[in-house]
Amino acid sequence: MVTGPLGQGIANGVGLAIAERNLAATCNTSAYEVFDNYTCVVCGDGCLQEGVSAEASSLAGHLGLGKLIVLCDDNSISIDGPTTLSFTEDLAMRYKAYGWHVSMVDDVNNLNELRKAIKVAQSVKDKPSIIKIKTAIGYGSKAVAGTNYAHGAPLGEEDLRATKEFYGVPTDKTFFVPDDVKAYCLEAAAAGQAMYEQWTDMFKGYTNDHPEKAAEIGRRFQNKVPADLFTHLPSLPKGEDKDKIELANMSTRALAAIALSSITSHFPELIGGSADLTLSVFPKYDGTNDFQKQTPQGKYIRFGVREHATIAVCNGLMAYGGMRPYCNAMLNFLGYGMGALRVSALSEFGVIFIATHDSLQVGEDGPTHQPIEMLESLRSMPNLLVYRPADANEMNAAFRVALSREKTPTVISCSRGPLKTMDASSVDKAQRGAYAVVEVEKPQLILISSGSEMELCIDGAKILQEEHGISVRVVSMPCQEIFLEQSEAYQMSVLPGDIPTLSVEASSVNGWHRFSHAQIGVSRFGACGKDKDVYREFGFSPENVALKGKALVAFYKEHDKPVPDLMHRPVFLNPTKIGNTSIFV
Amino acid sequence: MVTGPLGQGIANGVGLAIAERNLAATCNTSAYEVFDNYTCVVCGDGCLQEGVSAEASSLAGHLGLGKLIVLCDDNSISIDGPTTLSFTEDLAMRYKAYGWHVSMVDDVNNLNELRKAIKVAQSVKDKPSIIKIKTAIGYGSKAVAGTNYAHGAPLGEEDLRATKEFYGVPTDKTFFVPDDVKAYCLEAAAAGQAMYEQWTDMFKGYTNDHPEKAAEIGRRFQNKVPADLFTHLPSLPKGEDKDKIELANMSTRALAAIALSSITSHFPELIGGSADLTLSVFPKYDGTNDFQKQTPQGKYIRFGVREHATIAVCNGLMAYGGMRPYCNAMLNFLGYGMGALRVSALSEFGVIFIATHDSLQVGEDGPTHQPIEMLESLRSMPNLLVYRPADANEMNAAFRVALSREKTPTVISCSRGPLKTMDASSVDKAQRGAYAVVEVEKPQLILISSGSEMELCIDGAKILQEEHGISVRVVSMPCQEIFLEQSEAYQMSVLPGDIPTLSVEASSVNGWHRFSHAQIGVSRFGACGKDKDVYREFGFSPENVALKGKALVAFYKEHDKPVPDLMHRPVFLNPTKIGNTSIFV
Repeated sequence: MVTGPLGQGIANGVGLAIAERNLAATCNTSAYEVFDNYTCVVCGDGCLQEGVSAEASSLAGHLGLGKLIVLCDDNSISIDGPTTLSFTEDLAMRYKAYGWHVSMVDDVNNLNELRKAIKVAQSVKDKPSIIKIKTAIGYGSKAVAGTNYAHGAPLGEEDLRATKEFYGVPTDKTFFVPDDVKAYCLEAAAAGQAMYEQWTDMFKGYTNDHPEKAAEIGRRFQNKVPADLFTHLPSLPKGEDKDKIELANMSTRALAAIALSSITSHFPELIGGSADLTLSVFPKYDGTNDFQKQTPQGKYIRFGVREHATIAVCNGLMAYGGMRPYCNAMLNFLGYGMGALRVSALSEFGVIFIATHDSLQVGEDGPTHQPIEMLESLRSMPNLLVYRPADANEMNAAFRVALSREKTPTVISCSRGPLKTMDASSVDKAQRGAYAVVEVEKPQLILISSGSEMELCIDGAKILQEEHGISVRVVSMPCQEIFLEQSEAYQMSVLPGDIPTLSVEASSVNGWHRFSHAQIGVSRFGACGKDKDVYREFGFSPENVALKGKALVAFYKEHDKPVPDLMHRPVFLNPTKIGNTSIFV
Repeated sequence: MVTGPLGQGIANGVGLAIAERNLAATCNTSAYEVFDNYTCVVCGDGCLQEGVSAEASSLAGHLGLGKLIVLCDDNSISIDGPTTLSFTEDLAMRYKAYGWHVSMVDDVNNLNELRKAIKVAQSVKDKPSIIKIKTAIGYGSKAVAGTNYAHGAPLGEEDLRATKEFYGVPTDKTFFVPDDVKAYCLEAAAAGQAMYEQWTDMFKGYTNDHPEKAAEIGRRFQNKVPADLFTHLPSLPKGEDKDKIELANMSTRALAAIALSSITSHFPELIGGSADLTLSVFPKYDGTNDFQKQTPQGKYIRFGVREHATIAVCNGLMAYGGMRPYCNAMLNFLGYGMGALRVSALSEFGVIFIATHDSLQVGEDGPTHQPIEMLESLRSMPNLLVYRPADANEMNAAFRVALSREKTPTVISCSRGPLKTMDASSVDKAQRGAYAVVEVEKPQLILISSGSEMELCIDGAKILQEEHGISVRVVSMPCQEIFLEQSEAYQMSVLPGDIPTLSVEASSVNGWHRFSHAQIGVSRFGACGKDKDVYREFGFSPENVALKGKALVAFYKEHDKPVPDLMHRPVFLNPTKIGNTSIFV
């Protein structure tokens, strides 16, 4: 993996090492070590200052990931200058405290010592290892060696020449590779090729002796979901009394747990866990499937109270291959891991995020735990889907879409409390991002909503029809991104654009102006109180939906201009096309 | 301070302790210890698993904050169950590695030992202290003591009675305070009152001997900005050749540094620093004003590569009083500290964020460093201003607004590279959030933009006028939130709503549909290349602005309906009013 944002790499390494250990425990046999590799991380001082690396390192120590080896490029320099400006802790002692094997190499140029330290690290099987290697940044430069000026700026002509002299390479050549370096690289490539062939032979034997296991590994590493996987996802039966059936009127966090549980035994690559919310999502989980030091075959990871590392570790799991990671945190605390979540989207890792406690209904936990801006923050991120299902059918749809898109992460936003099952919810239609759940012949008003606010809109529509004679279409929009992928004709069929439209979501109104003429949303932080009371006080009641719906219809009646058509707008995608053109270095 | 999200409290404590030390160093005299307090943090196991606490603790050790004392409620339980599920590191050793004084109390009920440990911690002056205190969660309950079930659920009638029996209080009373507890509390209150009076007497003496210093402390603790502070902020002179004057055509990150520097000596409460980007923002900064262990009078904090703690420490600084914190990080890496930034907004802390490198123009650093979703993420957050100035006048306005609002944090989004000064930029008008910088008699098209994209719009408008005969108003919108605070009449004067409007921002289009009929934005992650090349490839050129502007005008000409009026919409604020009603516990 190539990372970028500081600190992610170590946490990704922890994910890679977990993947290796789990695959070894579940796929290897006494005769065949199909999965058997070290995970090596190269990091710098900056990486070790970031909280995400601290979280991940503590977890790695706890899990005793013996095949994880971190090579720390200890050059004592960050962009500001010497690390002594801000970073004077005893790093070796800290890593010992995490339960790691720690060693030092005083000079990176002492290659024998470095090789020896790596060999020792490889031999320590029960602990991850970190090797602190003293280096000089800009080594060989006369002007900037050992200083922060070597970090970002080019050397300049004179210093470049001096540096080349220092290394004993011709000063008049650029992109020059000396013969001995070339020979060394070719030797390493040949050794790698030989190892690969040896592994391939071994895997042929494995395939002969265990054809089903081998085929399954092949399938998993192609990121192909088993053909019949989706049939195991539960949905609501049609035509029955919905209140009486199983899955009816549950919280969507419970429905997410049921969906996960329903596919677990059919989808061996599913691996993940919670940042200390297990019992909140899986009320019956007893720990029997935990991935721990002594039970590496387990697929449930106890991430601890470490949201940032949780997500970064999932990225590492996905990068290894053969794994489909999910994780759970409160929606609001995805904010703690936003740095890693962005890497999921950027790296095209189809991690599945079960984000629970998704509105003001968190209640007594108060505004620190009540997301307001989070849904729109996530919706603004490229290559990320945000699904906010309202019932079991929409949860089914969310999982189908999430599992089908191995290159796009999906956040499934879930309620804490029970939600009323919708009569017209549809697994098929919910996969199109938005669809009408209450239809009328000639709508005078459209209500759009998602998740826990759907029932308010359905009930609000009834009030509008019965008390005010206003015909209302109610649209469930569990996923804006998917709706925007649909054909223009489909989009217009759901949202014609020039019928007064009111969106209702217990969240920031930002983003909704694209679809609606007016919004019921939240324009401040939440409040602490009983869930239903807080919700109602903030305007989330059928009565308020009806009141504002009526006001919106009246507004455009009184207005001397036609209802603005929000949907017929030109869309300019930028860039229209990005190829491997020469500008992209 | 009362925090909520785990891990913030420790980092807030570091900010409080820095504030105390800095105020003591700058305001105390040999005769008067005006500022002299310990900062005490009570935290749990979960707090110590979070990366933000790790970052802040490392910084506190580096700074040798001897008057910071952390009491760790070590109950070995998190929500999932025993902390042994995921957290088995040697915490004491970790804190020793950070350079802290560490002690243990084996049983919280041994109050003498606890008092002794606190006394020792107070006597250690050169290091922060952490006292690991063994406790039992739900102590006294028969059913749930020592288990995670004591975390969130009420005890229930029977267990409540048993617990009351355990504590020897009447089982039939609720909200009952025993006499000895009451007496103890009153005694503590009296002791506090006596200390307060002693301090008040001392401060009278200080006020006599140092009237100016005392008045300044008073002003600072009322969060009042000095009357003439804004006159020191630089602005562009009118009517001169703007290309030739100082401040012209600079990067906005450099202009932010100049603005900060211009007020430093007139605004003693200004304190802050950078998460390892000092030389990128202040190219001439030499470290002479550093806040360090040996130089507590310094006001420049070297936060290290620790974005999350940087922001949380700023929250602590603001909470102490008498301090106005700012900090600097790359805009994209505010994502690492979003958990703390949310607390700034929620706690009404007017922290000033200098967020640099704010677009695709970051260039070679590539998509990991190029923000796309960040501006809209921040704009969706309640009680937060996002200013994206385009030149020195708008930077002046951004600082005026930010400094005037001590209860609202402001993110000032800054470019890495130089931006062309605008002929019509205005300090006054930019404080209204949006205003026309190119005006025409009857605009056929409006371009709205901010920051680095302003010059593309101004040049694009010229092309549209000269080559296509389309009259264009260009609106600079440095701050959406402030624009939305203006009167309807002002808003309509800038954006009439029914003139075709194209927004241009090198960022997600989300949020712009509120103001514009079509958008030039970024619909994917960025790319690595030379800054100007990447920018142009993504459609950020005057030519593309002109092309899309022309297309938008044509779209509505061909369209059989009028241009949708985006600005005349009803706005429903929810809640309309939140009082101290009984629902808010």
